[in-house]
Amino acid sequence: MTAAVTLGGPLAGGAASAAADGVTGTLVGLFVLLLGAKLGEEVLRRLGQPGVVGEVIGGFIVGPHALALVAPGDAAAVFAELGVVVLLFTVGLEVRTDQLAAVGRPAVQTAIIAMILPIIGGFGLAALLGEEPIAAAFVGLALAATSIGITSRVLKDLHVLDRVFARVVIGAALVDDILALLLIGIVGGIADGDLSASTLLVGVAGIGLVLLGFAAARRARGLPRHVFTWPLFADTPLVPAFLLMLATALLAEAIGLAAIIGAFVAGLIIAETEAAEELERDVRPLASVFTPFFFAVTGAELDLSAMLDPGILVLAVTLAVIGVVTKAAGGLLGARRIGGWAAATVGFGMIPRGEVGIVVANLALAAGVVEDALFAAMMVAVVLTTVIAPYLLAFSVPRAIKEATGS
Amino acid sequence: MTAAVTLGGPLAGGAASAAADGVTGTLVGLFVLLLGAKLGEEVLRRLGQPGVVGEVIGGFIVGPHALALVAPGDAAAVFAELGVVVLLFTVGLEVRTDQLAAVGRPAVQTAIIAMILPIIGGFGLAALLGEEPIAAAFVGLALAATSIGITSRVLKDLHVLDRVFARVVIGAALVDDILALLLIGIVGGIADGDLSASTLLVGVAGIGLVLLGFAAARRARGLPRHVFTWPLFADTPLVPAFLLMLATALLAEAIGLAAIIGAFVAGLIIAETEAAEELERDVRPLASVFTPFFFAVTGAELDLSAMLDPGILVLAVTLAVIGVVTKAAGGLLGARRIGGWAAATVGFGMIPRGEVGIVVANLALAAGVVEDALFAAMMVAVVLTTVIAPYLLAFSVPRAIKEATGS
Repeated sequence: MTAAVTLGGPLAGGAASAAADGVTGTLVGLFVLLLGAKLGEEVLRRLGQPGVVGEVIGGFIVGPHALALVAPGDAAAVFAELGVVVLLFTVGLEVRTDQLAAVGRPAVQTAIIAMILPIIGGFGLAALLGEEPIAAAFVGLALAATSIGITSRVLKDLHVLDRVFARVVIGAALVDDILALLLIGIVGGIADGDLSASTLLVGVAGIGLVLLGFAAARRARGLPRHVFTWPLFADTPLVPAFLLMLATALLAEAIGLAAIIGAFVAGLIIAETEAAEELERDVRPLASVFTPFFFAVTGAELDLSAMLDPGILVLAVTLAVIGVVTKAAGGLLGARRIGGWAAATVGFGMIPRGEVGIVVANLALAAGVVEDALFAAMMVAVVLTTVIAPYLLAFSVPRAIKEATGS
Repeated sequence: MTAAVTLGGPLAGGAASAAADGVTGTLVGLFVLLLGAKLGEEVLRRLGQPGVVGEVIGGFIVGPHALALVAPGDAAAVFAELGVVVLLFTVGLEVRTDQLAAVGRPAVQTAIIAMILPIIGGFGLAALLGEEPIAAAFVGLALAATSIGITSRVLKDLHVLDRVFARVVIGAALVDDILALLLIGIVGGIADGDLSASTLLVGVAGIGLVLLGFAAARRARGLPRHVFTWPLFADTPLVPAFLLMLATALLAEAIGLAAIIGAFVAGLIIAETEAAEELERDVRPLASVFTPFFFAVTGAELDLSAMLDPGILVLAVTLAVIGVVTKAAGGLLGARRIGGWAAATVGFGMIPRGEVGIVVANLALAAGVVEDALFAAMMVAVVLTTVIAPYLLAFSVPRAIKEATGS
């Protein structure tokens, strides 16, 4: 009761808010994260650097491993997940299935080559260092999967989502996620001694969902706006579309794919309807508010103390270099027909490992097949690949555009 | 690890999502809440009833006290709070301080009369039933405070926020919140035997914040859009405005006012700038997505089992009738100069007690001055006032409009 009649600390809350103190604390945390992300973006952009790296750094600075102003909890994680889901939904809204199908061949080639090369590289390095084959397989796998979040954001910021190389990256990332799902199932099953036909089933379900999404997108072509606004609660198509996005994202997650794949597919479907343009505009405010949380929380979760150990740092940098070179090579080989710089951009776009790499490293640790030092090195390597990609893209994208204009 | 290679339950999640299972569960809960709210709204609107009541009922139905499909946790509470904060921000964006100041007199009169009458009524009934004076004071207080959330939403849905009666309701609710803050502090202090000068300080701080907000709004008049978009991260004024809204809401909360008062004041300030129209448009998608959570969570938290006890139900209905009649009388007396139906609308708009009434009931229970049955009756009465208001408004608003046109 005292809280009701004293001012207390700056956020002690009054009587009317006594019951909501937990919520207020969480809102303060979200505010600090968003402010940190935006200040980080501002500083980096003033320095001529990619804004999204600033959001990650801003999140790191206010987060528990630096200033400790905020310790992101469940609500921040939900905002982060919604952030990347909404981001990929907006990417889907800007892509047409025809355009994606048109780059099917380079996309699939890139996905396969840019998955095999890092696995060979990671496996080879780990085997050279004397790791068991199963541990080496996990190292390779951690370097194999692409997380498309940061690349989507960079390509969006550069306004090049309509370019051929952007479509190839996105298509390749889609295929990549399905391949990674299969491989993680297989390697995890071997580690557990529990490999079963259900692994294959998961893969089939993943491919099925994406193909179904493509088919739905084709059938959705030219659907009138009224399809979304027939409910009385829907003044605009936004809320029905938002519900569809969430449902597809959760369905993808239920199958074992990333939620963002589902959100992207939902975007693809709606992109074909007559509500597409209006939705693109209406989703933008949601993306502006939610998306920074994804990058800020990514930053806040970075524990860079492992980088202080020179042994781990050297191993991590080596892994990261292998990760960068093999993905770049994958792009150059897989997408060589779309032009040199465009293919390089595709490869660079596949470099960030993000949350998929982190999940693989954690699986390996949980299965007891990698020791702490190797785990830490894998985590740091994942971080390095994620932070370096925007710089490489900022370098290659203008050249790819020039190359396309010149030819 | 098994989760990585088996399909498991519908939401067991695959390898790539193993680390995010908590987040996925929360997202499923949010999806169910939003879907429940929207289906509830759809059904009620098809029946010609207020949509917002449908959102509350939808939340109740999917919530823990009915179908138990979802148990709203921290994240849902944050979405709910952001929902009502964004709602009052949009209301602030549609109101000009001049217009608000122009109805200052009826607004203040209404706030005072519509606070004194329910206190007398609630205190009188409780005293008649043999309650201690301090318990009776809490009962009166629980009937005194207005929660403007539901009324804002109804007036917005009816597109009448620009009407005089809407401005009077909003102004009165503003004054009401400051008065309630003071009274809760005083009564709470007496119950604790801990009444101090700081109670007054809180009141002064509350009045100070609102006056400062008004002064800031006057100074903000005609500020160019560039004031919001000078940061490189701000392509549009949305993110800076969102940060300002959050900061002001949290500041109000820190002082002891409701967060929504801060958000409303932030809206008032921005409404005077040249970014107002663009922001009104850009905030709409955020309001569409966040606001239903406020009403759905309100519904999900309703435990109506107390209504099965006839004694409690009779007491609750009696309290609710006193609450409705005294607030309606407060509006009719305080705002009589703006017309009969308009004044009735003002009174009806002040009826919902919402979270403030719930907080007061909980304070009384925590202070040990009311027994469980009286507490339950207070809670049910709060619910009844909240649900009946949209119906009374739907009845009086068209008549108030007709009255204004006719005169």
